[in-house]
Amino acid sequence: MKRLLLPLACLSVGAASAADLDMANKIRSEGFYNSHVMHTLEHLTDKIGSRITNSPQMDEANRWTMEQLKSWGLENAHLDPFDFGRGWSHDSASIHLIAPREESLHGIPVAWTPGTQGKVEGELMMLDAVTEAELQQYKGKLKGKILLMGDPPPIGKPKTIIFARHDSKKLGELKEFDPSRPASHEGWMTPARKDTRLQSYNFNKALEAFLAKEKVAGVIYRSSRQGGLVRVFGKSHRVGDTFPVPAIIIEQEDYSLLQRMLDRKETPKLALDIKARFHDEHTDAYNTIAEIPGTDSNPEVVMVGGHLDSWHASDGAVDNGVGVAVAMEAVRILKALDVQPKRTIRIALWSGEEQGLHGSRAYVEKQFATRPEPKDKVERALPRYLWKSPGWPIETKPAYDKLSVYFNMDNGSGRFRGIYTEGNVAVKPLFTDWFGPYMDLSTGAISNLSTGGTDHESFDDVGLPGFQFIQDPLDYSTRLHHTHIDSIDHVIEDDLKQASVIMAGFLFEAAMAEERMPRKPIPAAPSKLKQERQKLETEKERRTRERDARKALDTKAYGI
Amino acid sequence: MKRLLLPLACLSVGAASAADLDMANKIRSEGFYNSHVMHTLEHLTDKIGSRITNSPQMDEANRWTMEQLKSWGLENAHLDPFDFGRGWSHDSASIHLIAPREESLHGIPVAWTPGTQGKVEGELMMLDAVTEAELQQYKGKLKGKILLMGDPPPIGKPKTIIFARHDSKKLGELKEFDPSRPASHEGWMTPARKDTRLQSYNFNKALEAFLAKEKVAGVIYRSSRQGGLVRVFGKSHRVGDTFPVPAIIIEQEDYSLLQRMLDRKETPKLALDIKARFHDEHTDAYNTIAEIPGTDSNPEVVMVGGHLDSWHASDGAVDNGVGVAVAMEAVRILKALDVQPKRTIRIALWSGEEQGLHGSRAYVEKQFATRPEPKDKVERALPRYLWKSPGWPIETKPAYDKLSVYFNMDNGSGRFRGIYTEGNVAVKPLFTDWFGPYMDLSTGAISNLSTGGTDHESFDDVGLPGFQFIQDPLDYSTRLHHTHIDSIDHVIEDDLKQASVIMAGFLFEAAMAEERMPRKPIPAAPSKLKQERQKLETEKERRTRERDARKALDTKAYGI
Repeated sequence: MKRLLLPLACLSVGAASAADLDMANKIRSEGFYNSHVMHTLEHLTDKIGSRITNSPQMDEANRWTMEQLKSWGLENAHLDPFDFGRGWSHDSASIHLIAPREESLHGIPVAWTPGTQGKVEGELMMLDAVTEAELQQYKGKLKGKILLMGDPPPIGKPKTIIFARHDSKKLGELKEFDPSRPASHEGWMTPARKDTRLQSYNFNKALEAFLAKEKVAGVIYRSSRQGGLVRVFGKSHRVGDTFPVPAIIIEQEDYSLLQRMLDRKETPKLALDIKARFHDEHTDAYNTIAEIPGTDSNPEVVMVGGHLDSWHASDGAVDNGVGVAVAMEAVRILKALDVQPKRTIRIALWSGEEQGLHGSRAYVEKQFATRPEPKDKVERALPRYLWKSPGWPIETKPAYDKLSVYFNMDNGSGRFRGIYTEGNVAVKPLFTDWFGPYMDLSTGAISNLSTGGTDHESFDDVGLPGFQFIQDPLDYSTRLHHTHIDSIDHVIEDDLKQASVIMAGFLFEAAMAEERMPRKPIPAAPSKLKQERQKLETEKERRTRERDARKALDTKAYGI
Repeated sequence: MKRLLLPLACLSVGAASAADLDMANKIRSEGFYNSHVMHTLEHLTDKIGSRITNSPQMDEANRWTMEQLKSWGLENAHLDPFDFGRGWSHDSASIHLIAPREESLHGIPVAWTPGTQGKVEGELMMLDAVTEAELQQYKGKLKGKILLMGDPPPIGKPKTIIFARHDSKKLGELKEFDPSRPASHEGWMTPARKDTRLQSYNFNKALEAFLAKEKVAGVIYRSSRQGGLVRVFGKSHRVGDTFPVPAIIIEQEDYSLLQRMLDRKETPKLALDIKARFHDEHTDAYNTIAEIPGTDSNPEVVMVGGHLDSWHASDGAVDNGVGVAVAMEAVRILKALDVQPKRTIRIALWSGEEQGLHGSRAYVEKQFATRPEPKDKVERALPRYLWKSPGWPIETKPAYDKLSVYFNMDNGSGRFRGIYTEGNVAVKPLFTDWFGPYMDLSTGAISNLSTGGTDHESFDDVGLPGFQFIQDPLDYSTRLHHTHIDSIDHVIEDDLKQASVIMAGFLFEAAMAEERMPRKPIPAAPSKLKQERQKLETEKERRTRERDARKALDTKAYGI
């Protein structure tokens, strides 16, 4: 334990606490009764709209957030560039079934795919191939066709419950430590999983070349949510590597109709009109950075942030306008209270998160720690997530020792019910302490588990403390995440105010704490033993995959 | 009690029962192991698509169902016309926000409104008027504008549970008799409610004339479901009475965005392109009718049916392709078993249900019972639902005494958990009896309540027994009813088979029962006392409405 704490029993509002109770009252007052959080969010979502990395809208969002933070008195506000790739944006997309009957379908283009240059019409075909050999069977048959990309099974029943808050049972479960989980997020990406991903990457590259060569008119993907929701994704944004034909994602219900038409040997015809374009003015993307400087000489740093970029299906409200608005609101509250923190409080609004945490990873690399790139030239040319190793050893820079903690928000607009330690169990007494003045607003559950998939991972991966709060799930995963209804309409204002207040409280306490945050051991390359076991696993995985493929081919051949 | 029944305790499968148990086994076998129900439904929804009354698709559905019933051996298959009004259909619709930023919105035209004759662009304005005086404030300001029709409050939280089956608690509640409910569905439409509807009808007529005169380019309505669902409706289909300007219904999320833009004094511009048209080849619509003739001389009749027409948002699968498919499957099963029923079994697939039960009402009037029309010429020219009285006395025709019962299905694809008596409590022992052989498939709950809003009402209103089954609610009301995702994807095949088997069983038992079904007393005009009380109520309602309007104006004037 790094700090003298009162017994846990004392930690409730009104009792003596290691947290600054006067400051907590001020933060509440500013955060609840003079909130700017919805105004900030409304600007990001309604006025700017979707903010796909390196789009003109994202440029505008970078500029606006920087100016806004400046106007609140933050210092050193700037845009921090990193190498990303091509920009992309779209204005509109329409897709109509024109035969055997007419119907307007509902679709949104795949990001980083070209527009149609006006309306194109074409017959529909199914492309049901998962190997390059299967692909060859379509040779010479696809010119001018519009393709359904795959033949999935029918739509199942919907989720029963689409909106929920954590109950005490769930919060209780979250508190259990689970040693079977890897120590860091990188642990999830085993060599076997990478191998599968590489296979799929290689097939997709062959597929793309094939589609271009065969002069396909356009391709259609199925939304990964049912119930009329269009859930989007993107293709490669890397220069010289972008998808060759117009591509659109449509509702599952529309996709299934087209599948059944093809099953019945009808010949559906479609009209596609997609206005989309690449932007090659700059290949850098930008993180918005600003600070409340610390009063210590050569101060340590506490950070807060969330990703500013979004997908293009709607306005990126719960993913992740809310995380940005709460991070901005937290520093606005502290600035409005004219805090004089010992440590510097720095806000970072990341870009390129949706394409693989690019902004935060580049920032961590620039500021805190580097890792060697693959020696093999071919491997180095692949997207980073396909490199065999994340790069060992981690080499730290001077600022590495100066960063105390990074708090991230990126799990929708649900209120903060507690916090995940990411397995850094030593922080538990501190967090318990800091939740003290807010226990009427939150259950303050401390979970030893980790929550993955977003920018705190970039810190955690190099051994720096990066945390996220336990948020009520609401309808984030069931219907909003990356879908066309991720608009400000589904954000819960009271929850955002609560989150802003607790975020401000945690930032303040972290900035004033006597010592730097405790850390997990710095990650190191897997041991020889572990490497050997992983090699065996990868081999087994490959054999299984090949056997499954042979079985699938048999099934096709015999029609069973 | 009209028939000697065994004590209730004996009524379970395997015990002696008044139901024909051998026949029940045959029905199960045909219905579960040789089902045609999904094939029938797929033709209606996928091949024909939406079936709006008097559209070319509905004509095709009439023709196809008639031919299909004939091909199964039913007799007297024909299309029975009734006076309806104009036909209407649409091919496609698109709506784009073009300023202050670009975004494709998601909308479907309002039925029976004109297309745009190509793309029209216009500035957006809010039309927030509920009285003719308020309307006048917009005079001279609307030319070429696209209007948001009303300024509703923000979108609230979604329903938590979107998919459910009835539990035993709910089924228990349904069994209670509630004498406060009116004896017939017509009882719901009190003079006070009619008065409110007439006010709103008159305002809407004034509004329509105003929109036409002011040369409005188009109007936008808000979907009545959130979460990306476009839930549709229609304007008047009556000749000489159709809506004058293009009208579209858009997602709540899109509508709210436009509202907020106007709130912030931005000037959104939109582009509308709606391909829709009226069909005036015939003003008659058609019910599809067919029979399995009864073996009695001058046989009585049992009927089964559901409405074949649908709205135009999707393919009309759960509303009401399923009701049609189950009714057709029930008679197909009986025909396949070569039943020789004492009573004639007649199937009726109604048209014009969605616009006010027009097809079934016309049929009942033609076959069974007439009612006097209003004497007042002005009143008679109004749509029927605005007539002060449904028409007293009911005058019966000879066939009135010959109809034993009508079974309807129109509550989605949820399985049959029991049946509603519509307050005709005397039928309870019969229904208990008939459920006997199917108690492993259904809980067989008998509810004394009524279930309103569809074609059995046309029978019940004149004192003829018309029933619906208690169905599991599933996601019918939460997301499918009249929305753009009412496709076959959300139909549960097993539930449809179960419903078809029970429907066939009930039809057979009703056709073979010793006596005609017991009836409620024939409806009569309200007593003098009741009329007096209703008059007072109507007056009170009018005063309340006027006071509320004055209050609302005050609120506007003072901005409070």
